[in-house]
Amino acid sequence: MTAPSPSERSAFVPAPPPGRRTAVLLLTCPDARGIVAAVAAFLSGHGANIVDVEQHTDADEGLFFQRVEFALDGFDLADDDVLPAFREVSEPFAMEVELRFPERVPRVAVLVSGQDHCLLDLLSRARTGERVGDVVVVVSNHPDHQASCDFFGVPFHHLPVDGPGGKPAQEQALVALLERERVELVVLARYMQVLGPDVVGRYPHRILNIHHSLLPAFVGAKPYHRAHARGVKVIGATAHYATVELDQGPILVQDVAAVTHRDSVEDLVARGRDLEALVLARAVKLHVAAKVLVHGGRAVVFG
Amino acid sequence: MTAPSPSERSAFVPAPPPGRRTAVLLLTCPDARGIVAAVAAFLSGHGANIVDVEQHTDADEGLFFQRVEFALDGFDLADDDVLPAFREVSEPFAMEVELRFPERVPRVAVLVSGQDHCLLDLLSRARTGERVGDVVVVVSNHPDHQASCDFFGVPFHHLPVDGPGGKPAQEQALVALLERERVELVVLARYMQVLGPDVVGRYPHRILNIHHSLLPAFVGAKPYHRAHARGVKVIGATAHYATVELDQGPILVQDVAAVTHRDSVEDLVARGRDLEALVLARAVKLHVAAKVLVHGGRAVVFG
Amino acid sequence: MTAPSPSERSAFVPAPPPGRRTAVLLLTCPDARGIVAAVAAFLSGHGANIVDVEQHTDADEGLFFQRVEFALDGFDLADDDVLPAFREVSEPFAMEVELRFPERVPRVAVLVSGQDHCLLDLLSRARTGERVGDVVVVVSNHPDHQASCDFFGVPFHHLPVDGPGGKPAQEQALVALLERERVELVVLARYMQVLGPDVVGRYPHRILNIHHSLLPAFVGAKPYHRAHARGVKVIGATAHYATVELDQGPILVQDVAAVTHRDSVEDLVARGRDLEALVLARAVKLHVAAKVLVHGGRAVVFG
Amino acid sequence: MTAPSPSERSAFVPAPPPGRRTAVLLLTCPDARGIVAAVAAFLSGHGANIVDVEQHTDADEGLFFQRVEFALDGFDLADDDVLPAFREVSEPFAMEVELRFPERVPRVAVLVSGQDHCLLDLLSRARTGERVGDVVVVVSNHPDHQASCDFFGVPFHHLPVDGPGGKPAQEQALVALLERERVELVVLARYMQVLGPDVVGRYPHRILNIHHSLLPAFVGAKPYHRAHARGVKVIGATAHYATVELDQGPILVQDVAAVTHRDSVEDLVARGRDLEALVLARAVKLHVAAKVLVHGGRAVVFG
Repeated sequence: MTAPSPSERSAFVPAPPPGRRTAVLLLTCPDARGIVAAVAAFLSGHGANIVDVEQHTDADEGLFFQRVEFALDGFDLADDDVLPAFREVSEPFAMEVELRFPERVPRVAVLVSGQDHCLLDLLSRARTGERVGDVVVVVSNHPDHQASCDFFGVPFHHLPVDGPGGKPAQEQALVALLERERVELVVLARYMQVLGPDVVGRYPHRILNIHHSLLPAFVGAKPYHRAHARGVKVIGATAHYATVELDQGPILVQDVAAVTHRDSVEDLVARGRDLEALVLARAVKLHVAAKVLVHGGRAVVFG
Repeated sequence: MTAPSPSERSAFVPAPPPGRRTAVLLLTCPDARGIVAAVAAFLSGHGANIVDVEQHTDADEGLFFQRVEFALDGFDLADDDVLPAFREVSEPFAMEVELRFPERVPRVAVLVSGQDHCLLDLLSRARTGERVGDVVVVVSNHPDHQASCDFFGVPFHHLPVDGPGGKPAQEQALVALLERERVELVVLARYMQVLGPDVVGRYPHRILNIHHSLLPAFVGAKPYHRAHARGVKVIGATAHYATVELDQGPILVQDVAAVTHRDSVEDLVARGRDLEALVLARAVKLHVAAKVLVHGGRAVVFG
Repeated sequence: MTAPSPSERSAFVPAPPPGRRTAVLLLTCPDARGIVAAVAAFLSGHGANIVDVEQHTDADEGLFFQRVEFALDGFDLADDDVLPAFREVSEPFAMEVELRFPERVPRVAVLVSGQDHCLLDLLSRARTGERVGDVVVVVSNHPDHQASCDFFGVPFHHLPVDGPGGKPAQEQALVALLERERVELVVLARYMQVLGPDVVGRYPHRILNIHHSLLPAFVGAKPYHRAHARGVKVIGATAHYATVELDQGPILVQDVAAVTHRDSVEDLVARGRDLEALVLARAVKLHVAAKVLVHGGRAVVFG
Repeated sequence: MTAPSPSERSAFVPAPPPGRRTAVLLLTCPDARGIVAAVAAFLSGHGANIVDVEQHTDADEGLFFQRVEFALDGFDLADDDVLPAFREVSEPFAMEVELRFPERVPRVAVLVSGQDHCLLDLLSRARTGERVGDVVVVVSNHPDHQASCDFFGVPFHHLPVDGPGGKPAQEQALVALLERERVELVVLARYMQVLGPDVVGRYPHRILNIHHSLLPAFVGAKPYHRAHARGVKVIGATAHYATVELDQGPILVQDVAAVTHRDSVEDLVARGRDLEALVLARAVKLHVAAKVLVHGGRAVVFG
C-alpha cells in the first residue's frame, strides 16, 4: 500500500504490430445526410487509411453512432491535433467525439473481494497475451490475494472496509491509490462492496462490473439463491458499466448456461463462476479495443 | 362453437408401439430410506418391468421426487386398481402420487389471440407425429384462425371478449367449451388475455403458458420493448404453468437468443417468435410425456 | 406445370417503407489505401446518403470486402447507370462489384422432397412478413405438397425423377420452369436429390441448401445416423450455397443443439428438424438482404 | 523426476460430507425384465439406501445401462465384499459391473505441452474445491510449467521427447512415473504428443483427451486452421477417452462457440482456449463422479 510512484507497465502487455498503429474515432450525433462521407473525406484528406468502419443508426431516436479505425502511418496530424482539426466535421454535425489509440493499453485496477476466479482469469489472460489491458494494481477488502498477485507479478493492496474510518476512509484510500496509479479502467471482479457515488462519478463508463445474473433479473444480492428459489432453467452473467444506481448501468455482455432442478444453489454458484469470468473478460476486451459507445443507458457494442 | 359432442381424436395422434404400453408413476414424498426399493418391489411383485427411473432428492427441503415408467405387458393390476394397491407403498412414505398412461394422449385446447406462430407450430408438429397431445379445439378472441384450423383439420372457436356479457361471459363460454371437449391440457399459445382465477383454478398445472421473456425478468406486458429499452444482450422465452399470479407459475422450459444494439424492437419480436414456438413445444411434449412434477412453485423436469 | 407466364408476385411480399428505397454495393478487391474514402466520395458526390457500411479485411489474403447501403432519395443516378459510373472507383481498385436493390425482392423457387418442415416454415415466415423473398413456385419430386401450397397460395409443381426420361428429363423440366418463372434464388428445403452441374452452374451462389449436419462433419447421406453411431454430444445444421462438389459450398449459417445418449436417431431427426428450418430461414434472409459476399469458397456474412 | 514415493494427497481435495459416504454401481447388460427390481432388492436387503438411480435402455442394441448410487451408512457389506456378493444379481443378468467410491478421489496426472490454459484451469478448479480429482503430478515435454506447479503446490516433471532414447524412452519414463504415483486418471490437457498404444492400453477409459474441434470434424492436426479455411460458423471442443485410434475414442462432452468471417485463425485459437478448458473440466468432473459408462465406442454420460 505504500508504492509512491505508479507501477511500471507489466511485461504482459503485447506490443502493437509494427506499422499498424491505429487510432479510433467513436462518434455519436443526430442522424443526418453525409456523415459517413464527411468523416471519410476528413481522414482521407489527412492521409489516413481507414481500416475499419462500423456504424449504427437508431431510427427511433434519430441517432447515428460510428466507430472508425484508421492507420496512423501516413496520417499528417499529430495525436493531439486530431480532435481540434476534426471540429470542422464534428461541429456541423453536433457530434460527441471520443478519440482512442488502441495500442495505448489502458492502466487497469482490478477490485476483488473473497472470490478470486475472475481475478485469476484476467491475470491468466493478460499473461497469455489477450488484450485485457495493463493490470497495474489489484485491490481487495480481503487480505487473501497476495500470493496470487505475486505469482502473476502484479502489485496487491489490501484495503479493509472495517479499518479506522470505516468504509468512507477505505474509499478515500482507494481513490488515492487509483489516482496515484493513473488508473484508466476499474474492473470490479466480484468486488462485493457497493462503490459510493464519489468513486463512481470519477470514472464514468470506466468502471466495469460483473453481476452474477441476467440483468434485469435478480438485481442486488444473492442472485443464485433467488434463481434457485424461482426454479429458472437458465442462469447468466452480465457485464455492465457501473453507475450510481445499483446494477442499472449499460450492459456490454451477457451470457447464459442451462440448468435443471438437479442443480443446487452450490451448483449454480459453480456454473456461474465460469460464466462470470468469461463474460467479464469479453467486456474488458471490448472496452480495451474501444468498441463500446454508451448513449442513454444503453451500450452500442461494435463487432 | 356449436359442436354438440366432443371432437374425435385427430388423425395425427400417433399410436403407441404394440406391446410397449407403459404407465408412469410420479411420486413426491419426504426423503427416507428404502423408497426406491419399496417402489421397485411393488412393481416387480405385480409383474411389471421397469423401463425407466429418474429421481431427484432436494436435500435442502428433505424431499424425494421420482418418475417410474413401467411396461404394462405382464403387469397383473388393472389400470384402475394401481393406485389403490399402491397405497401399501404410498401411505407409509406419505407420498403424493400421480398415475399417467403416456399412450392416453391428453386432449388439448390451444388458446390464441392475434399472432398464430405458436399455434401453427404446434399443429405442424402434431401432423409430423411429434407427441404434442391431441389438439381437439382451438379457441381465440380473434376471428382470424378459421382457415388455418381448417387446413389442419382442427375445430376453431371464436370467443370474442367484447361480446355481450364481456369478458366474464367469454370465460363462462370458454369453460363450458373446455368441459364439453373434455380438455385435459390448455395451451396458451400467445393468448394475450389474462385468464381469471375461475378458469385457472379448474386446471391446476394443466395450463401451459408461453411468456416472451426470460422470467423473472420483464413480467407482464411488452417484454421486448422493455428488453430493448434496457439494452439487454440476451432475450428469451419461458414456458410455465399458469397460476393465479401473473407470470409466477412453475417454469418448465427456458431458452435464449443473443441480440445486439442493431436489433430493433421489431427484430426482437421476430427473433422471439422462433424462441416462443420452440420453448412452448418442448414444454407441451414434456407435459404430455408425464415428465413434470411440481412442488412449491418449482418444476422438476425429468430427462 | 402448365403456367404459361411467370406467377404474379405473392401478396406476402412486404412493400419497402416509403422514402427508404436503398441500394447496396457489395465490393471485393485487393486491400489498398483509400478505398473507403473513394467509395464514400463517389456516393456523396452523387447525392446518396450512406445508411450502412460494413467491411472486412482479410489480412492473410490481402483482400478487402465492403457492403455499402445508401438511400436512393436524392441520388442523381438512374439504377442502370450506377455500375457504369462507379467504374471510376471500381477499376482503379480492381473491384468485383455487385449492385443490389433490397426492395426488389428476389423471385424464389423452393425445392422439396418428402419432408415439408422447411417448406412450411419458409411459407409461414413469408406470410408473417419476414423477408424471405417472393416464393413464386414450389417444386417437388414427391406429389404430397399440393394442399400445403394451396393453403399458402403458392403454385406447386410435381416433377418426379422416375418419369419418362428419368432424372435428366426432370432436370430439364426443372430448368425450364425456373427460367419461365424468372427465378433468382433456388432454396433446397430438404430436397434429397443431387442437382446436376448443369443446374448448379446456372445459379452460382444463387442456390441455398440446408444440410443436416455441422459441415464438414457428416458430408453426404444419413448424417443423423452417423452422428448417433459416433456418439456425438452436439448436432447441427448448415446452410450453404450449393456448388458442384457435394456439401462443399460456402457456409452462410450453422447452428447446434446439445444431445445426449438418451437421444435415439429418431430423436436427433426431430431435434434436427427445428434446427434445419431455423438455419435455412436465417440464410435465406441474409441472402435476400444482400448481406453475403463469397470469395474463395468462404462466405463473408455481414451483420 | 526423482520422487521415490507417491506424492501425498493434495490439500485441495474436499472431504466428503460426514455420514454421506456413498458407493456407485455402474452396470451394463442385455436388456431384460426385472433388472431394476433385482438391483434394488439386493441393495435394500443389505441395508443400503439408494440415493440416486439413472438408467438408459438402448433399444436398438438391446442393452441396459444403470448407475446406482447408495449410501454406505447402514450397509452391511464391507467394501471388498460388495462385488462378490453382488454376483447373485450380476451373473443371472450377465452384467458388466464397475464399483466406485466417489469419495475416493482418483489420483490424477495432467500431461501438458506448451500451452498451459487447460492445466491452469484444472489446478484453479482443484483449489476452489471443484471435484476434478487429486492432481498428484503434472508432466510435460516442455520445461515451462515449474513455476505454475510450484504456485499450486503440485509436483512437476519435465519429460522431454528429444532426450536420449527419444520418444520410446520418454514413454517408458512416463509409464514408470504414472505407476509410481499410482495414477488412476490421466488428463491430456493439450498434450500435443500422440501416446503410443503401450501407454493407452494400460489405462482403458482412464485417459481423457481434449481435442480442439467438434469431432468427427477436423480429426488430427491444426483444426482451427482447417476450420478457418472451410469458413465454418461454429467451432467447438471435444473431450473423449483416448484410444489407440487417434481422435476416435468415446465422446464425453462437446461444446461450441459461434464465429464469423471476422475471426482470424488466431481469434479461433483464443476463443477455443476457453472452450477447451471448460469442456475438459466438465469431462474430468463427470469421470471423477463416476457418471460415465462406455459401450461400443460411445459414452453413456449420466445427469
